[in-house]
Amino acid sequence: MDERVRDHAELLVDWSARVEAGDDVVVSVAEDAHELGVAVAEALGERGATVTTLYGSDEVSRAYLKGAEARAVGDDVPSFDDDPAVDRAIFEAADVYLRIGGGRNTTASADVSSATRQAYAKARKGVREARMDTDWVSTVHPTRSLAQQAGMAYEEYREFVYDAVLRDWEALADEMARLKDILDEGDEVRIVTERDDAPDTDVTMSIAGRTAVNSAASVAYDSHNLPSGEVFTAPYDTTGEAFFDVPMTIDATRVRDVHLVFEDGEVVDFAAETGEEVLAGVLDTDAGARRLGELGVGMNRGIDRFTDSILFDEKMGDTIHMAVGRAYDACLPEGESGNDSAVHVDMITDVSERSQMMVDGEVVQRNGTFRWENGFEE
Amino acid sequence: MDERVRDHAELLVDWSARVEAGDDVVVSVAEDAHELGVAVAEALGERGATVTTLYGSDEVSRAYLKGAEARAVGDDVPSFDDDPAVDRAIFEAADVYLRIGGGRNTTASADVSSATRQAYAKARKGVREARMDTDWVSTVHPTRSLAQQAGMAYEEYREFVYDAVLRDWEALADEMARLKDILDEGDEVRIVTERDDAPDTDVTMSIAGRTAVNSAASVAYDSHNLPSGEVFTAPYDTTGEAFFDVPMTIDATRVRDVHLVFEDGEVVDFAAETGEEVLAGVLDTDAGARRLGELGVGMNRGIDRFTDSILFDEKMGDTIHMAVGRAYDACLPEGESGNDSAVHVDMITDVSERSQMMVDGEVVQRNGTFRWENGFEE
Repeated sequence: MDERVRDHAELLVDWSARVEAGDDVVVSVAEDAHELGVAVAEALGERGATVTTLYGSDEVSRAYLKGAEARAVGDDVPSFDDDPAVDRAIFEAADVYLRIGGGRNTTASADVSSATRQAYAKARKGVREARMDTDWVSTVHPTRSLAQQAGMAYEEYREFVYDAVLRDWEALADEMARLKDILDEGDEVRIVTERDDAPDTDVTMSIAGRTAVNSAASVAYDSHNLPSGEVFTAPYDTTGEAFFDVPMTIDATRVRDVHLVFEDGEVVDFAAETGEEVLAGVLDTDAGARRLGELGVGMNRGIDRFTDSILFDEKMGDTIHMAVGRAYDACLPEGESGNDSAVHVDMITDVSERSQMMVDGEVVQRNGTFRWENGFEE
Repeated sequence: MDERVRDHAELLVDWSARVEAGDDVVVSVAEDAHELGVAVAEALGERGATVTTLYGSDEVSRAYLKGAEARAVGDDVPSFDDDPAVDRAIFEAADVYLRIGGGRNTTASADVSSATRQAYAKARKGVREARMDTDWVSTVHPTRSLAQQAGMAYEEYREFVYDAVLRDWEALADEMARLKDILDEGDEVRIVTERDDAPDTDVTMSIAGRTAVNSAASVAYDSHNLPSGEVFTAPYDTTGEAFFDVPMTIDATRVRDVHLVFEDGEVVDFAAETGEEVLAGVLDTDAGARRLGELGVGMNRGIDRFTDSILFDEKMGDTIHMAVGRAYDACLPEGESGNDSAVHVDMITDVSERSQMMVDGEVVQRNGTFRWENGFEE
């Protein structure tokens, strides 16, 4: 086994999930993530944890949903059990949940209708909440399918993934703490970008009373992705408009050049160059799907290109992302809940050029450079 | 997808497990059983069941156990949580459990010590009991690894598996009911075989008060294997000696020519041409491991050869098997429990020649032919 697979597994178990002896750990292994699943199981045995392994197959999920569609009479949307006993029991009993992505086809579910997906997502809300109450971490094993999605050779993609994952996370956490402090003390964020052939972005949102997460790829930092490397918070009362020039894949459909217009915190108009229908489906999921749940700033400079994977893209240095839908509880005052939705869809904009992020009127980042860095222009 | 895979999935879901709308179904998918897992998920969606998919990977299990061995200091046997919360919760919440075998290497766990296996099996007793309280069915997807174990070409092996699985189960159930009636009314079974170069078998056991299972590959018949095609009961007070000439694999080790000597219901002496140490480990697991838990008569004539897989071998026509260890509750009077053990290991003898099975002194089967069949010699 490639030593980097073992290093990845140990980072996941020790740094990210902080697994201890006696923990009940659930691991979901995607179709081609077997090798990392094996390395993680070995590490969990060494730590004295117990392990339950789920098969996270997109083709199995797609088959189940297609079966449900066949059962639904005529054009009806399938109905799903909104309290699936086994899945709820799993996550209520688990201390830690480790999701290892890495399937065989990133568009494996392309022929499932968005109405079916939405019905399923709604029915799974309780399971999702129980899952998010665990110490969960999501990562990915480099597969040929993901290399293809990234437009890269397989070996090249493996290098890319391990460059992004196998980092000095403590050093990055220290760097990110600077931005977290600014956001925690600030009340309002304004983001401005200029584009030649696309709409400019000028969007303002409140962050008063919200707590930014220093997302250093560890549950000890309220951070649940490996790799991570972003600082994010839960904004509200968004106004203005935002353009997202980084392409993405939503529900197996390519979505490009999303433009959102906000009034009183809600999306009141939207457009996309491709995939607009899928975007409309997301925004129509529920009331919370039209409000922002997240503002994030990518700070992982080990990620040097977009690979059409949100796990990596949103962490890339010189990018900012906003997500419609669900807010993370870690950004909210104890006991309060933020924007609620069955969805959470991130959209990314490049801020490396002709852009500014201001907090309470002061420029914090300009053209990708933070104000504490060399090269920042006053 | 090969239509036989769909037929297999539908037989498993409908005939074997009797899945109904609203059932919570857990499916365990082995490493190379993906295709059948997909077909089963589609069938479950069509039936209106919910599905949770486990990854039944021998390599993941092996890695976990090797990790636990590395954790155990010096030569100590690893200790395992004897109440694993997640796995218990899964099977307590599940209505149906479908296990789909079909890995990549039938000896994937060959380097795990038998002491570690036994410690793990003991710790998992509660999980196993919860699992057996579901409507569980075990089947197998034909893989190259299983073809190799059988000494067959892959396509040839697929034909073999589907010949064994895709049968007229109602017709076979009617046939097997004849033997079940004889065993239910009988008090004592005696099995005699003559061999030239090996010990003869002459073993007697009590079956008074016990109920035989007409194992027609459906939970409706208290039968939990697909394929099945055997009639089995739970004997006790075994005396005499038995020789098992069909090779088998226990804990990834080949075991041949097992000879057991019984006194007062217990194994008091044993030998094996190969794998004797593994056999000793099985018999030493606990007190129940030295007593028989099962006597079974293979009646599936769609199985035309031994393939070194107990799922198939023990169902083959013209064979009889006995298992040391755990008895199945279905054979016992309501509320009573039979022989209890963490293990259940089947051993098979060929009865096609120079053999007799007698119930209360009357010959029921001679040289593989039952007394209601053409060719039976009075």
